[in-house]
Amino acid sequence: MLSAMRPQRFLYDLSDCPIATALDVLGEKWTLLILREAIYGVRRFDDFAEALSCGRGVLSARLKTLCEAGVMERRDYAEPGQRRRAEYRLTAMGRDLFPALLAISQWSERWMPPPAGPVAHVRERVSGQPVRVVMTSEAEVRPLTLGELDITPGPGAVRLA
Amino acid sequence: MLSAMRPQRFLYDLSDCPIATALDVLGEKWTLLILREAIYGVRRFDDFAEALSCGRGVLSARLKTLCEAGVMERRDYAEPGQRRRAEYRLTAMGRDLFPALLAISQWSERWMPPPAGPVAHVRERVSGQPVRVVMTSEAEVRPLTLGELDITPGPGAVRLA
Repeated sequence: MLSAMRPQRFLYDLSDCPIATALDVLGEKWTLLILREAIYGVRRFDDFAEALSCGRGVLSARLKTLCEAGVMERRDYAEPGQRRRAEYRLTAMGRDLFPALLAISQWSERWMPPPAGPVAHVRERVSGQPVRVVMTSEAEVRPLTLGELDITPGPGAVRLA
Repeated sequence: MLSAMRPQRFLYDLSDCPIATALDVLGEKWTLLILREAIYGVRRFDDFAEALSCGRGVLSARLKTLCEAGVMERRDYAEPGQRRRAEYRLTAMGRDLFPALLAISQWSERWMPPPAGPVAHVRERVSGQPVRVVMTSEAEVRPLTLGELDITPGPGAVRLA
C-alpha cells in the first residue's frame, strides 16, 4: 500500500537507468581521474601511475574496464631500440565523455572554488570564447566537441620545476 | 629530463583540480545514485535503502558525506502519532549537480542505449521541448535549471504492480 509520502519513483523499476549503466563503467574516483589524464594527453601506463599517484593494481584494473567498455583503447608500440610498450587512448566514446567531466568540473568551481583560481581554462579554439556546459531546449544550439576546444592552464595549475 | 613523448601535463601540479575536488564528494557509484533518487523525490532513509538495494551502512556513510559537503541536508520531522524521522533533501548546491547527472545519462544513452528505450524523458516544462546538455561558447544561451524541467517516465522505466 502506498503511503501519502511515498514518491512516485516506487511505481517504476529503473534497472535500465542510463546513469546506473554509466556508473558500472565510471562509478569510481580513479576512473574519472584516468579520463582527465587521458584528455590532458597522458598515454603510457607509467605516466598514468605517476600523474595519479595511484596503485598500479588499481590503475591496471581500471584501464582494463575502460578498454572493455570501449571508452579507451590499448595500442602496442615500440620506440627505436626500446622494448614494446602499451599506450592507452580515448576512443570517440571516451572523448564524448568530456561534457560530463566539464559539467562536474564547473559545478565544483561554482560551489567549491579552487583557492588559487581556475586550474584550467576551456575555450573554443576558433573564437577564443569560454565554454560552458548548459542544459538547453533550444534546438539550434550546436554542441561543441572536445576537438574544437583549447584547454590551457589557469592560475590554479601550479607549474612544476 | 623531459622525453619527447612526455605530455605537457607533467609540467603542472593539478592538486586543486576541480574534478578531483568534486570526486572527493561524488567519486563513488552509490553517491551518484543517491542523488538520482533524491531528484526523483526520495527523502527518507528507508526509501533510499529500498530504491537502491544498497547496504544501510554504505547508505548512511554516503548520506553523511553528502550532508557534510552541503549537497544534501537532513531535516527531522514527525507525522502525527509517529516517531520522529530524518529526511534528506537536495540543497541548491545539490540541485545544481543535475546537469552533470544528465550529461552522464545522455552519454550513456548515446553509447549504451537502454534496450527498451529511454528510462526517462527530460523536457522543459513551459515549452515541452526535449532538453540536452551541451558544451557551448554562445554567451546568449540561457542555462535551464532543474526547477524548469519535467522528468517523466519513458518506455524503458518498467512500471511495477
